[in-house]
Amino acid sequence: MTLKGACLYAQSGGPTAVINASAYGVFKTALDAHEITNVYAAANGIVGVLNDKIYNIGKEAPNELAMLPGTPAAAFGSCRHKLKPPEVDNSEYLRILEVFKKYDIRYFFYNGGNDSMDTCDKISRFFAKNDYECRIIGIPKSIDNDLCGTDRAPGFGSAAKYIAASVAEICLENRVYDAESVIIIETMGRHAGWLTGASALAGLSNAAPDLIYLPEIAFDMERFVGDIRAVVEKNKRCLVVVSEGLKYADGKFVSETPALASDEFQHAQLGGVASTLSRVVKERVCKKTRGIELSLLQRCAAHNASKTDMDEAFEVGKFAVEQAIAGENGKMASILPIDNKNSGAKYALNELSVTANNEKVVPREWINSVGNYVTQEFIDYALPLIQGEFAQTENGVPRFAKLKLALC
Amino acid sequence: MTLKGACLYAQSGGPTAVINASAYGVFKTALDAHEITNVYAAANGIVGVLNDKIYNIGKEAPNELAMLPGTPAAAFGSCRHKLKPPEVDNSEYLRILEVFKKYDIRYFFYNGGNDSMDTCDKISRFFAKNDYECRIIGIPKSIDNDLCGTDRAPGFGSAAKYIAASVAEICLENRVYDAESVIIIETMGRHAGWLTGASALAGLSNAAPDLIYLPEIAFDMERFVGDIRAVVEKNKRCLVVVSEGLKYADGKFVSETPALASDEFQHAQLGGVASTLSRVVKERVCKKTRGIELSLLQRCAAHNASKTDMDEAFEVGKFAVEQAIAGENGKMASILPIDNKNSGAKYALNELSVTANNEKVVPREWINSVGNYVTQEFIDYALPLIQGEFAQTENGVPRFAKLKLALC
Repeated sequence: MTLKGACLYAQSGGPTAVINASAYGVFKTALDAHEITNVYAAANGIVGVLNDKIYNIGKEAPNELAMLPGTPAAAFGSCRHKLKPPEVDNSEYLRILEVFKKYDIRYFFYNGGNDSMDTCDKISRFFAKNDYECRIIGIPKSIDNDLCGTDRAPGFGSAAKYIAASVAEICLENRVYDAESVIIIETMGRHAGWLTGASALAGLSNAAPDLIYLPEIAFDMERFVGDIRAVVEKNKRCLVVVSEGLKYADGKFVSETPALASDEFQHAQLGGVASTLSRVVKERVCKKTRGIELSLLQRCAAHNASKTDMDEAFEVGKFAVEQAIAGENGKMASILPIDNKNSGAKYALNELSVTANNEKVVPREWINSVGNYVTQEFIDYALPLIQGEFAQTENGVPRFAKLKLALC
Repeated sequence: MTLKGACLYAQSGGPTAVINASAYGVFKTALDAHEITNVYAAANGIVGVLNDKIYNIGKEAPNELAMLPGTPAAAFGSCRHKLKPPEVDNSEYLRILEVFKKYDIRYFFYNGGNDSMDTCDKISRFFAKNDYECRIIGIPKSIDNDLCGTDRAPGFGSAAKYIAASVAEICLENRVYDAESVIIIETMGRHAGWLTGASALAGLSNAAPDLIYLPEIAFDMERFVGDIRAVVEKNKRCLVVVSEGLKYADGKFVSETPALASDEFQHAQLGGVASTLSRVVKERVCKKTRGIELSLLQRCAAHNASKTDMDEAFEVGKFAVEQAIAGENGKMASILPIDNKNSGAKYALNELSVTANNEKVVPREWINSVGNYVTQEFIDYALPLIQGEFAQTENGVPRFAKLKLALC
């Protein structure tokens, strides 16, 4: 059962505020494990393996590695590289095998979303067919929280916390002047409304948005304009949160569809959905309308990370290494529901294919019947995930891990 | 010398993350002063006086007032109302006098920027001419830091801290993929580049922007494109920070001027400067170019407020009340330079007219000779102002003051 060899960690897909906490969970556990001879990280995910660009984590100062959880983005670089099925083209798999053999890599931890789990699955099957013994465990991450096979994806809680705080603060801003005013805030989450819905948590600051539109519900411009008009007539001020991925019933993205008659006569590059919708609301409801795109900050704002999320990101990385050492292979480490009765366990292993080929959207019953807000069930789910503050500062600015990134 | 009567506090202009800390400095000091009979706040600045909409601060719970420093935006509402000169139209002054007499207001503290100091000045002169004894002190605030007569404006430090942290985090984001990538971040500060320059503080996180363009320097598109091209050729990734107020040498705002040939053939509503410039860079330098507008968050992000800034905002409010009680009138409370040798004093009084009629821009010598970065002098000035963290949370979200706002 014991397998001795090196361990490789790599990051893939869009980064999160706490993906490096998972990296630290892997490194700390692997560096202490006598089964593991060397600890490596690939530069830019699987691309770093293909290019034989491998960092030696053993060369890093332990106190700097300990700064990884407070360091956002992907400290080792990420990629969006998708492997072709080996039956179509196995050249990349052969190259991966070659590099793994070169470093005697017997443990591989790939930290990413759906595509990364697919990559793990494919490599794992290829290695098995080629009799190369290597234990591969996927570690989930996604600010979008759209991963199946885990109750929540590390990264979501921190993004949700940033959105809740930012929406609450903007809500107070929107009340400053005694005048009609509409603000439309755009969150990420192209196919799933978890981040958009998280804005409802601002209600705990008594600063909730008035309306929330998730991508799970077909967008109807007339209803949207009517909803806002009703709020403005009643309260003067209206705060709206929308997903970047809003689509009309015909499947066209709102952000890519001319929304005003004047749009059709020009070839302007359309902006995001907040920009598109604010032009409509400005023309039809309230002159003082502003669109705000939270943009990259929602996934990299480590200065307002959720301690709960960060701890889980670390733990799930640690769990992945422990399970691999114990003999597991070809699985994804996952987080169990908070209220699970399963003997108090917090983490489990799941099939990679469950995550690779599915997308978890917000259940219809967690969205109100008219489709312009989330329900209490959504809030009950998301609230525990944003608990606890964590920020690492020095000289008044964020203190990030200072890594040597020494190539092997 | 002793003047007994009520005290009125009001907020004006754009809010900041810490303007309510000044409110608390005023209230706490005034509630404790035996010269002051009642403590009031006007709803929406001077407009609340004109409308006789006055809140009784004595009715508020002390523990909730103590939450004001951690509450962003203007807790009592703000306005952008400019009084006409009394010689042109004195009707509003007469109304103000009437309301002041009704409540026996003998102390007035107006918290705002240039226009608010002008309002203080005008009311103060009108009252003097009409023999109404009332001590009026302006309390400065501005995220833009463009106020003369004070070394720094409360609100700037917190906005600068938010910008430094956000720019540092986005810088790490921009390094995630091994590909050419340009990000252009837009800060507020239409006429003065203090906030834009503050992005250089991200350098202390080893995540500095590559290029910074302040509104003090005439914008040259060819030089801008050339600067970015040089960075991309050298480092692949380029992070640029620009002021919303960038202007060409002919005085036209970059954000309001067609920047691409295609712009001239359409009547698209132009977006902000980051959006305009990113379209140019996308076409001429790097396809993967993204514009990010920090928007309202830079002035309301209390979740990342500077403790130094917050303390000074409180102290300057307190100082204003103390000075008024001591007999001062028709002045602005101001903050002295950190290194001032003036017997250790931190606060002073200044003429209202100095602030009312001037605008403080970044000195030319604090900008590098080619005009695309700030110098060490700028950093030395700004760094002390972002020191210390402060965030008030409950249940994982911001905890704002819960005020009754009981009308008199």
